Amino acid sequence: MEFSSFLTSLGTSFTIFIILMLLFTWLSAKRGNAVVYYPNRILKGLEPWEGGLKTRNPLAWIREALSSTEQDIINMSGIDTAVYFVFLGTVLGILVLSGVVLLLVLLPTASTDDEVKKNAKSTTSKGTFNDLDKLSMANIEERSPRLWAFLIAVYWVSLVTYVLSWKAYKHVSALRANALMSPEVKPEQFAVLVRDLPDVTPGQTSKEQVDSYFKSIYPDTFYRSLVLTNNRKVDKIWAELEGYRKKLARTEAIYEESRRKGNSEGKRPTNKTGFLGLCGKQVDSIEYYNEKIKKMTQKLEAEQKVTLREKQLGAALVFFTDRVTAALAAQSLHAQMVDKWTVTDAPEPRQLIWTNLTIKFFVRIVRQYMVYVLVFLTIVFYMIPIGFISAITTLENLRKLLPFLKPIVDQVQIKTVLEAYLPQLALIIFLALLPMFLLFLSKIEGIPSGSHVIRAASGKYFYFSVLNVFIGVTIGGTLFDTLKSVEEEPNSLVPLLAKSLPGNATFFITFVALKFFVGYGLELSRLFPLIIYHLRRKYLCKSEAEIREAWFPGDISYATRVPSDMLIITIVLCYSVIAPVIIPFGVLYFALGWLVLRNQALKVYVPSYESYGRMWPHMHTRIMGALLLYQVTMLGYFGVIQFYYTPILIPLPILSLLFYYVCRRKFYNAFCHTALEVASQELKETPNMELIFRSYIPPSLIPEKQEDEQFEGALSRVSRTGSFVWSTSFVYFHHSDAVL
Amino acid sequence: MEFSSFLTSLGTSFTIFIILMLLFTWLSAKRGNAVVYYPNRILKGLEPWEGGLKTRNPLAWIREALSSTEQDIINMSGIDTAVYFVFLGTVLGILVLSGVVLLLVLLPTASTDDEVKKNAKSTTSKGTFNDLDKLSMANIEERSPRLWAFLIAVYWVSLVTYVLSWKAYKHVSALRANALMSPEVKPEQFAVLVRDLPDVTPGQTSKEQVDSYFKSIYPDTFYRSLVLTNNRKVDKIWAELEGYRKKLARTEAIYEESRRKGNSEGKRPTNKTGFLGLCGKQVDSIEYYNEKIKKMTQKLEAEQKVTLREKQLGAALVFFTDRVTAALAAQSLHAQMVDKWTVTDAPEPRQLIWTNLTIKFFVRIVRQYMVYVLVFLTIVFYMIPIGFISAITTLENLRKLLPFLKPIVDQVQIKTVLEAYLPQLALIIFLALLPMFLLFLSKIEGIPSGSHVIRAASGKYFYFSVLNVFIGVTIGGTLFDTLKSVEEEPNSLVPLLAKSLPGNATFFITFVALKFFVGYGLELSRLFPLIIYHLRRKYLCKSEAEIREAWFPGDISYATRVPSDMLIITIVLCYSVIAPVIIPFGVLYFALGWLVLRNQALKVYVPSYESYGRMWPHMHTRIMGALLLYQVTMLGYFGVIQFYYTPILIPLPILSLLFYYVCRRKFYNAFCHTALEVASQELKETPNMELIFRSYIPPSLIPEKQEDEQFEGALSRVSRTGSFVWSTSFVYFHHSDAVL
Repeated sequence: MEFSSFLTSLGTSFTIFIILMLLFTWLSAKRGNAVVYYPNRILKGLEPWEGGLKTRNPLAWIREALSSTEQDIINMSGIDTAVYFVFLGTVLGILVLSGVVLLLVLLPTASTDDEVKKNAKSTTSKGTFNDLDKLSMANIEERSPRLWAFLIAVYWVSLVTYVLSWKAYKHVSALRANALMSPEVKPEQFAVLVRDLPDVTPGQTSKEQVDSYFKSIYPDTFYRSLVLTNNRKVDKIWAELEGYRKKLARTEAIYEESRRKGNSEGKRPTNKTGFLGLCGKQVDSIEYYNEKIKKMTQKLEAEQKVTLREKQLGAALVFFTDRVTAALAAQSLHAQMVDKWTVTDAPEPRQLIWTNLTIKFFVRIVRQYMVYVLVFLTIVFYMIPIGFISAITTLENLRKLLPFLKPIVDQVQIKTVLEAYLPQLALIIFLALLPMFLLFLSKIEGIPSGSHVIRAASGKYFYFSVLNVFIGVTIGGTLFDTLKSVEEEPNSLVPLLAKSLPGNATFFITFVALKFFVGYGLELSRLFPLIIYHLRRKYLCKSEAEIREAWFPGDISYATRVPSDMLIITIVLCYSVIAPVIIPFGVLYFALGWLVLRNQALKVYVPSYESYGRMWPHMHTRIMGALLLYQVTMLGYFGVIQFYYTPILIPLPILSLLFYYVCRRKFYNAFCHTALEVASQELKETPNMELIFRSYIPPSLIPEKQEDEQFEGALSRVSRTGSFVWSTSFVYFHHSDAVL
Repeated sequence: MEFSSFLTSLGTSFTIFIILMLLFTWLSAKRGNAVVYYPNRILKGLEPWEGGLKTRNPLAWIREALSSTEQDIINMSGIDTAVYFVFLGTVLGILVLSGVVLLLVLLPTASTDDEVKKNAKSTTSKGTFNDLDKLSMANIEERSPRLWAFLIAVYWVSLVTYVLSWKAYKHVSALRANALMSPEVKPEQFAVLVRDLPDVTPGQTSKEQVDSYFKSIYPDTFYRSLVLTNNRKVDKIWAELEGYRKKLARTEAIYEESRRKGNSEGKRPTNKTGFLGLCGKQVDSIEYYNEKIKKMTQKLEAEQKVTLREKQLGAALVFFTDRVTAALAAQSLHAQMVDKWTVTDAPEPRQLIWTNLTIKFFVRIVRQYMVYVLVFLTIVFYMIPIGFISAITTLENLRKLLPFLKPIVDQVQIKTVLEAYLPQLALIIFLALLPMFLLFLSKIEGIPSGSHVIRAASGKYFYFSVLNVFIGVTIGGTLFDTLKSVEEEPNSLVPLLAKSLPGNATFFITFVALKFFVGYGLELSRLFPLIIYHLRRKYLCKSEAEIREAWFPGDISYATRVPSDMLIITIVLCYSVIAPVIIPFGVLYFALGWLVLRNQALKVYVPSYESYGRMWPHMHTRIMGALLLYQVTMLGYFGVIQFYYTPILIPLPILSLLFYYVCRRKFYNAFCHTALEVASQELKETPNMELIFRSYIPPSLIPEKQEDEQFEGALSRVSRTGSFVWSTSFVYFHHSDAVL
């Protein structure tokens, strides 16, 4: 890639970003768009515009983002989001601190080395030497004493990473502890999840079995249990009932509108009762749906009774009257045989993956390993097409392979743009296909909570993107030139990687710039959600609920966001010393990300779960992984350019492993379990156990008749499970109590 | 080694065993020896001879051993001993079941192969083919279809091992559960060990800190805490006081004797007060010691107060009023920072290693890894001298190296005996040097309980003996012949090992036979303890306590016994198919071991701790390790003799790893912690918390004045800590309560 096409790419990206930002300023100020740009504030019952004031200042959102505190984020979006900002802030800090030193010291050191310039001509003719390379280690002669500066820089970056990530771990740990010791009553802190119930003895229900078991161990603090039931049938009936209710609401809205428009009695909507409403008897819709709802309600009630009594399964939720007992129970071994009565933390009701709860102990383990093998295969076999794509999408190759494109491609402007974007675009599209598959794989592992599935998928995605994008592209880009040398020495991967590193720096700089300018521009402007909302509103939605569904924003979607951030860190760290020019781009990525997502977290996204920062250890591990990869790469690179003092770098990877180990031992356990000193903090009020208990009842089992205000309140969180239960949830919970 | 010397060796060993057994029959029937042959019964307050009847039948002990039940063993010697017999029984079962099939099928298959016999002459001339080899795989031609029988035999042995070890694991797990749910009050079930206390805030003692922390978490069940103190000084004073008390008792005994003998007033003993009683003023001993004891008692009381108040350290024992809370607390994370307030199970008072309790979290980890490195180095560097010894101690070499031995060595009888024993003796002596060192290493890891130290040392010893004895001897024995081939291909260890296997079978058969006939003969006859006891009694002991000390038998000493059993299993398993003749010897080893130790456990040894079978997972792991080594060896051996269907064996090691993994997941956790369903069983009586608490007070801190009957009872277990605290225990516990 030539320097001019690099600048074109940057310029285009920046222009797109400015346009998107201006669009955002203009669009977000329109009242009709408020539900797209301020849904989180609206759902929390706040005014869309802070202080009720609209502004046309295109930088106002930046001011608001900068002035918001961590507490604001926690209030608006929870601990998980706050932890994500700690992560962004930490990485930003690492890059800024590294950048200040590296840019000031390494750029002059590299650009003033005259030795290589003498041979510049011959190198340029090979087409791998451009203006950017003058600022990188490629401009330093082999064995030059100037390499000392680069070697020390490797240490500096590592040191900065250790210090800042240690501080961040401490801070996040405190955030988690504070949230868990909050005096607010949180249902999941009073419950544990019990799986692998042993077979019931005849004449006993699972419910009785669970109750007697836990009563004997916790005679004073056991409150009640909720045994899982097979809800396939009751769910179906409930879904049908809900369908009729939606249709009724929609029909009433249409009738209302026709009355308003016609200024008369209006036209009562009708429908046909046959197949898809296309044939059969014509009936009055409102009456018809009311009739149906009445019938289905009776059916539901009957089925609920049968389900609760006869369809109990081998898992349960157990409730305790205080947090300490629940925390103790979740960490302790209950049965002498470890594969029976396994007790763990209860996830929040909204993130429980009900279908996974009945999977047995050893089946879970087998599934887990099978998924690991599958992921491994996926990673390995995706590498082949990616390498192929990155080799093919150079313009030269395209022209050769697809000669009919020649006339288009040879036009100067198109050529420049294509040259700048083609490889990166191919990569980005390719990567977008994967997350769904990885989420699916993580889910069938048998993990009981949504947040855990997202962490698992995010981890898989990270390994995938580092192995395939970073290593794959680096090697793939030079594969056609060096295929021979690899064939000769198949073990030469590290020197090969090292040799091809400087040549790929510009590719990755463009990649990062594309990601942040275009990616964050689209994120901020919310163009696609806006268009979809207006389309749905205009042509599909009738009732209030349908409109709400059309603008409901969802959550930040860590499953893809975190691994792509991680990929950027890995790339920037690995190139930081070789081509320090990449650091400002990294800084821009995380600074812009911090600003844009701060805005989105405060105003747009609605978190779909709260895991109290359990994402952090996952992020920390991967930051350490990136650091380690960086250190090993540098070791290899210094080795390849034959610097005599390369072994001075050997302690660094060892130090990183040690640092990681210490962090893990010191902090990690408190992220897996609730520490007792935290759980034992006093509550604001005596917990209403009935409310806590009811918050876990699945919607299809909630009795239709006795709905009162209080009941609704505790259940409101359950009914939002939709976004987590990816497959149809056919099993739900049961309590055979007389109240229900 | 020739066949005749093999028979000589066997015959001699057997004769020695018979003689030792007859000696045992004769000696154990004498009343004066009862304390040597029946100490466990005597200490439990039983008659030495069952039913009070002496017998001169040399096989009576066998009848008694066979008729004893597992419950007898548990009553007389605890769960750990019962588990050891499960282990012996399981291994015996594996060998018997394997042996029946292997001997019946493989021996005829091997001995009737005529192909090799044709070439027998040339092979014998090499000196590696003897009569025993005719019964082994060495007699089967390469690629012979008869190898199918051997291949299937490998599967049979593995299958038998899986089935029996699974059953044993289940049985031991039930034993442990039963013991832990016993309605008897056991102090360690009500306590937890708290380490890594954070620094105290000024103006607060550790004791206050611990109390307020645990009171806030367990407001209802927290009983009291016992903070560790630096007892260096108080221990010294107490030891001095105890010394004077012993001397007083001894002096009084001497005086008593002189009165009895002289039939008069007797002669009051005197001593000099100066250095070692050799100079200084002559004084009346009884008065002098009484005076000293009075003075020291005052000093002790003053020091006790100072210690309790001012010398508190950073660890504590915390007591709860019920077992469930203690079990819950021991398994749960207490502090948000994992390296503070670490809570674990409390070991029994008698097996607490006080000096290790104050070692900090990360220091423990560092120590552990340092010890691992040290053990690794020990294992590797012991291999050199062992290989050297086993090469040198063949008679040929001895004669060459030490020519002055020639006249002795050349006598036929001496030659035969030496040839039979020399290598094995050298090996056994060499191995005897190690256990102390490994115990020391395990202790400085920072492990808090004696039983755990013994397990750790036993594990290290096992790796050592398998690597050095089994692999070392096998290779070392053929090293001089094949040194060249190893130099040429350093990776040829597996084929080398496989090739030298049949040649070494006789060596190991002799080794096993020596171990069981002579080893168990000595064990049963207790010749050395008997002689030492009589010597001490005659020349040293005066007081009752001193005599008791002279015959106190100690425990079964698993630290060395288990690894040597493990070595035998490894050897027998590895040779089982190659040379099935070894199996009967293995069976004899474990059958005789079972019988002799049954006798010793019932009548002789007094367990010095109870870990409720925690040794079992350790044993199971090593049985699996032996099985894996066996399977890999067979894979290598079949490969070397070029049997085409060798790959059929590949699933076996994988199966073993899977089986091990499943066992570990299903059972292991219940051996690390107390399952709650077990801890929640009801007690016979309300526990006397004061007694439980006092049982943990170190002897030097027990107040001298208020000793009452009850107090003594609870403390009687503490005073036996001696055998566990290998180093001088200078730190002890503290409770700043007014009662003391």
